[in-house]
Amino acid sequence: MRVGVLGGGQLGWMLARAGDPLGLRCRFLDPSPEAPAGRAGELVVGAYDDPASLDRLAEGAAVVTYEFENVPVSSAERLAGRTRVFPPPRALEVSQDRVTEKRFLESVGVPVPPWRPVGSRVELARAVADLGCPAVLKTRRLGYDGKGQHLIETPGDVERAWAQIGAAPLVLESFVRFDRELSVLAVRGRDGAIACYPLVENLHRGGILRRSLAPAERVPPALQARAEEHARRVLETLDYVGMLAIELFQVGEGLLANEMAPRVHNSGHWTIEGAVTSQFENHLRAILDLPLGSTRPRGFSAMFNLIGTMPAREGLLAQGELHLHDYGKQPRPGRKLGHCTLVEGSAAARDRRARRLLAQLAPGVGIP
Amino acid sequence: MRVGVLGGGQLGWMLARAGDPLGLRCRFLDPSPEAPAGRAGELVVGAYDDPASLDRLAEGAAVVTYEFENVPVSSAERLAGRTRVFPPPRALEVSQDRVTEKRFLESVGVPVPPWRPVGSRVELARAVADLGCPAVLKTRRLGYDGKGQHLIETPGDVERAWAQIGAAPLVLESFVRFDRELSVLAVRGRDGAIACYPLVENLHRGGILRRSLAPAERVPPALQARAEEHARRVLETLDYVGMLAIELFQVGEGLLANEMAPRVHNSGHWTIEGAVTSQFENHLRAILDLPLGSTRPRGFSAMFNLIGTMPAREGLLAQGELHLHDYGKQPRPGRKLGHCTLVEGSAAARDRRARRLLAQLAPGVGIP
Repeated sequence: MRVGVLGGGQLGWMLARAGDPLGLRCRFLDPSPEAPAGRAGELVVGAYDDPASLDRLAEGAAVVTYEFENVPVSSAERLAGRTRVFPPPRALEVSQDRVTEKRFLESVGVPVPPWRPVGSRVELARAVADLGCPAVLKTRRLGYDGKGQHLIETPGDVERAWAQIGAAPLVLESFVRFDRELSVLAVRGRDGAIACYPLVENLHRGGILRRSLAPAERVPPALQARAEEHARRVLETLDYVGMLAIELFQVGEGLLANEMAPRVHNSGHWTIEGAVTSQFENHLRAILDLPLGSTRPRGFSAMFNLIGTMPAREGLLAQGELHLHDYGKQPRPGRKLGHCTLVEGSAAARDRRARRLLAQLAPGVGIP
Repeated sequence: MRVGVLGGGQLGWMLARAGDPLGLRCRFLDPSPEAPAGRAGELVVGAYDDPASLDRLAEGAAVVTYEFENVPVSSAERLAGRTRVFPPPRALEVSQDRVTEKRFLESVGVPVPPWRPVGSRVELARAVADLGCPAVLKTRRLGYDGKGQHLIETPGDVERAWAQIGAAPLVLESFVRFDRELSVLAVRGRDGAIACYPLVENLHRGGILRRSLAPAERVPPALQARAEEHARRVLETLDYVGMLAIELFQVGEGLLANEMAPRVHNSGHWTIEGAVTSQFENHLRAILDLPLGSTRPRGFSAMFNLIGTMPAREGLLAQGELHLHDYGKQPRPGRKLGHCTLVEGSAAARDRRARRLLAQLAPGVGIP
């Protein structure tokens, strides 16, 4: 059974790896002949909006999905005319534009930090006056890993931020003094069944995810339930099928949604070893109308991204119980080249080992 | 870093899958263009003794290994002239001939069931008289999954057994009334470090492995220690590098070696989900001089082979915590098409679920 995937990055590689033992074969569309997923499936090299490449992707595919959300909605719609496409193109559309996304989240009762759309220099000044400082100015579209964002600490920063990204449609968001960053990973099957993983605690630096701990500690049942309820509302309103991630800010006992990703997510990589069924397998199960797998955690996991340069393999593997995932990408500053995961029997043991590992890896992991 | 692999069956596929996240790329040599490993690495289609194919396999490979032991020793030796070959060709030689293997095991102090070499009809009659009935007549070479074996229950069976396999060099073995079948899986690194997995309890039917339980239950420390000592003697005497499996019969508190396999082994498939480091990853780590990974079990595993026909994927995946491995092979009676693994928090829970699953799968699993 064949699955078409828009995008051929490491998420695609891990999707194909999860599908292979289930008898599923992935075919990817990616503009780069070096796309990592090409190691695990057939790679169609072409632009995301090239009709011939899209047709090739759909050919013989039981379903098409995406591992990258910045593909044209029109491409997803073209594919939907030829085969099933999950998650639904509407989810792609919602998540591609921060303003559409925030309006959508608010409409289904998921709170977000205060925000204002910004279409002009004048609107920006008004938005800064309304929301106060600090605030974050972001492009509405095509932002990822902290790209296209500027922190406005004082009104004096407005000019420079505007000069740098003012050409694009923008949104200003209140800077949230959160207690911590969490994410909820949920999956919905074609039959409407929903399963959630336990909340994950994330640490970003420079806009890039550095470390995830799962399950997050100190999560009272009410907090987990609230996060799951947020996910459920998004999933059901969009008649969503597949994995969904929502990044959250925890402030006191409240949760504010930062953004959503209509795909498998970096903060779910720990599920490969740390949960009974990985997010990658569950995404495939969902879109193919197979029964969802258990999201039960198997111990206490820590996941570290390896960014910019790869630490020596020997040193990592000498950690004994560490799981290495080398994406096989060329090193480049700020680029996610791989990740590694620890799974321990207790949160204390996990944190102890994570600290030791971090001290060793600091240059590649980037957490001071 | 490239690894050459003689053989491209499901063991090769799982080796490549384990190597991929470590940044290792496998290239396989197999006579069949349909070899399952071709999905996970480059496949050279050629005979195991074709010099050009062997040279292509060795080209640029940091090391060459095998996933199938019935490849010509001369091929391994040719490769050893061009690159490193692990396990050492001598291990291949020993394990290819049941008589050589038994002599070797006895020479290092690993007990085997009583046996006699059989080169003629007269020798067979004498061996049956010596060992008594029942006994098993086997071809010395090229036996696997119960092929090339005949049970001699009474002296009256000798004629038919001789007629069927008497053309090949044979060995007669006492039929062991074992309490159970076990296997020890051990790995030795290039630095001489050795790690063992906990003993596995196996069930064969018709000469094919059907089910493995790991860790085996009721294993006193002395029994585990004895099995590990047997493995250590084999490993060190052969200056072995890589994974080794020894199939054992337990009789009371004693262990008799049935046969050894100089490669990853079917009774170690549970390690993919059921141990911190899989046998496949540890084999690669060993042959590449990387630190060995932890062999610690993560819970209580049961592994079932899927033989002859594949049960419906939906039914298997509805089991929730079941891990499916579909080798993507054409169905054929007696052929291993896949396996599935359960991992539970206790032996009792594992056994309960395994019984339920077995009742459902019986046709594909073949355990009455």
